[in-house]
Amino acid sequence: MHNDPSLNKLRKVAIVGVGLIGGSIGLAMRAAGLKIKRVGIGRRRLTLDRALEYDAVDEATLDMAEGVRNVDLVVVCTPIGIMGRMFEEMAPHLAEGAIVTDAASTKAQVVTTATRLLPSRVRFVGSHPIAGSEKTGVEFARADLFQHAVCIVTPVAKSDPEAVQTVQAFWAALGGHVHALTPSRHDQVLARVSHLPHAVAAALVLLARTGGATDFAGTGFGDTTRIASGDPALWRDIFGSNREAVLAALERLEKELANFRRALKAGDDRALMDWLGRAKAVRDEWVSKRYAKKEVEP
Amino acid sequence: MHNDPSLNKLRKVAIVGVGLIGGSIGLAMRAAGLKIKRVGIGRRRLTLDRALEYDAVDEATLDMAEGVRNVDLVVVCTPIGIMGRMFEEMAPHLAEGAIVTDAASTKAQVVTTATRLLPSRVRFVGSHPIAGSEKTGVEFARADLFQHAVCIVTPVAKSDPEAVQTVQAFWAALGGHVHALTPSRHDQVLARVSHLPHAVAAALVLLARTGGATDFAGTGFGDTTRIASGDPALWRDIFGSNREAVLAALERLEKELANFRRALKAGDDRALMDWLGRAKAVRDEWVSKRYAKKEVEP
Repeated sequence: MHNDPSLNKLRKVAIVGVGLIGGSIGLAMRAAGLKIKRVGIGRRRLTLDRALEYDAVDEATLDMAEGVRNVDLVVVCTPIGIMGRMFEEMAPHLAEGAIVTDAASTKAQVVTTATRLLPSRVRFVGSHPIAGSEKTGVEFARADLFQHAVCIVTPVAKSDPEAVQTVQAFWAALGGHVHALTPSRHDQVLARVSHLPHAVAAALVLLARTGGATDFAGTGFGDTTRIASGDPALWRDIFGSNREAVLAALERLEKELANFRRALKAGDDRALMDWLGRAKAVRDEWVSKRYAKKEVEP
Repeated sequence: MHNDPSLNKLRKVAIVGVGLIGGSIGLAMRAAGLKIKRVGIGRRRLTLDRALEYDAVDEATLDMAEGVRNVDLVVVCTPIGIMGRMFEEMAPHLAEGAIVTDAASTKAQVVTTATRLLPSRVRFVGSHPIAGSEKTGVEFARADLFQHAVCIVTPVAKSDPEAVQTVQAFWAALGGHVHALTPSRHDQVLARVSHLPHAVAAALVLLARTGGATDFAGTGFGDTTRIASGDPALWRDIFGSNREAVLAALERLEKELANFRRALKAGDDRALMDWLGRAKAVRDEWVSKRYAKKEVEP
């Protein structure tokens, strides 16, 4: 596999936050044969030791200043809630022309924060690799986490084209299918396919708890609600940083559920069948597209 | 494994509708070592030939009268919409004391229909093995489909105790964890853990279609919406036969989503965190209980 020539300029990459995502980036870089030094930056020695043990990074440090020194690319993989602090901490120590990106699940707020806090000699491009799990921690990191995963980059008008190209090439080298969206379009789309579904899964779990109904739940329930086992603090940050788009998606969902309710209440079997049939058709088409890409049922 | 002595009285079982569920019952009977003749009854020669080919049944017939003659137990596995017709067709031909059960996903309406249409010499007990898939057809049948599956039987006041015992023992022999609930309690519980989640998954798919958001959907979305690929006709019947309970569950779900909306709108991070944390705790407990039973993540 040939990697994009823009990656040849990278000699050293810093990964800030070496958990499931950060650790998987390190492992995937190695698996892709990228000859780039990987530096892990974290707040806990234990996490860093584990990251070294799993060979997710080549070096590890608790010291941000030391970690980002002379680094060509920084990938910030911390929870959204502390990302602003990370940008502030690294700002004085970044080299001229260094590229900074991230892996957060929401983009408009992160891009605004990064643009405000990072110095102009640094080139920021937002990223969101759509991969992960309800698990957290480097012990769940996988070299193939980004294989065939959609990776969205969110350049804005004043983004440096070369930096955008490098960040796109980076995710592509790790196995991702790269798309570019504006930050607000990203947030709208993700509210629909990820953030709101998470809230709905949580609501379904809380509903199922009433009257002990969970005792009778089967594998369908398990799949539908799997994401509700995600880390509440991570998700609070995601919701908090994508409030408007999630509220708009919730309003649209309630309209769909109102269509369902109306048909059910009226005993309108034809409308019910049509509604269910449309949903099946959309999902089956989605599965077949993904299947073509991944050769496994998602 | 020792099967319940009540099963020794069964020499012949008829399976009406040899699809995913009916076919899996036949395969599971064989895998459990039950020495009971298995007769498949269907409306299409092709399906019956396939069922014979897969060894899901020992004999197969298109003729209901012939199929249920001298049979000790009949398991009706057709879609809910045609179950009434099946009861009518078999009624004149059932032997004195024959036990009839079913595998439908809703129970109050089915139990009422069976009680009305079956003669008094026949003993009916409703069943619902909570197992299946978004797939349909005997080609997806599996001998282990009911292993560790919750199987609910729904006896009523005038059910014959011996028949209840036999039906419970039957599902237990196939690997199920058997519970008894009243038909209306069953329908309330299933509306919460299965029927409403199906409608919500469909609504999420239809929401995700807007603006082409599905192009950016990941594995979480795939899991959350998997059940929306189920057969629309089957699900129309399920909803139509459990209208009140599904509408009541929808009302409760909307209250949970209103809690979420309120916290999000107010920027109340603590309430959001608490809400998400409660959902995670309930689901994690559910997973650990199931894990203890099944030794695999559900």
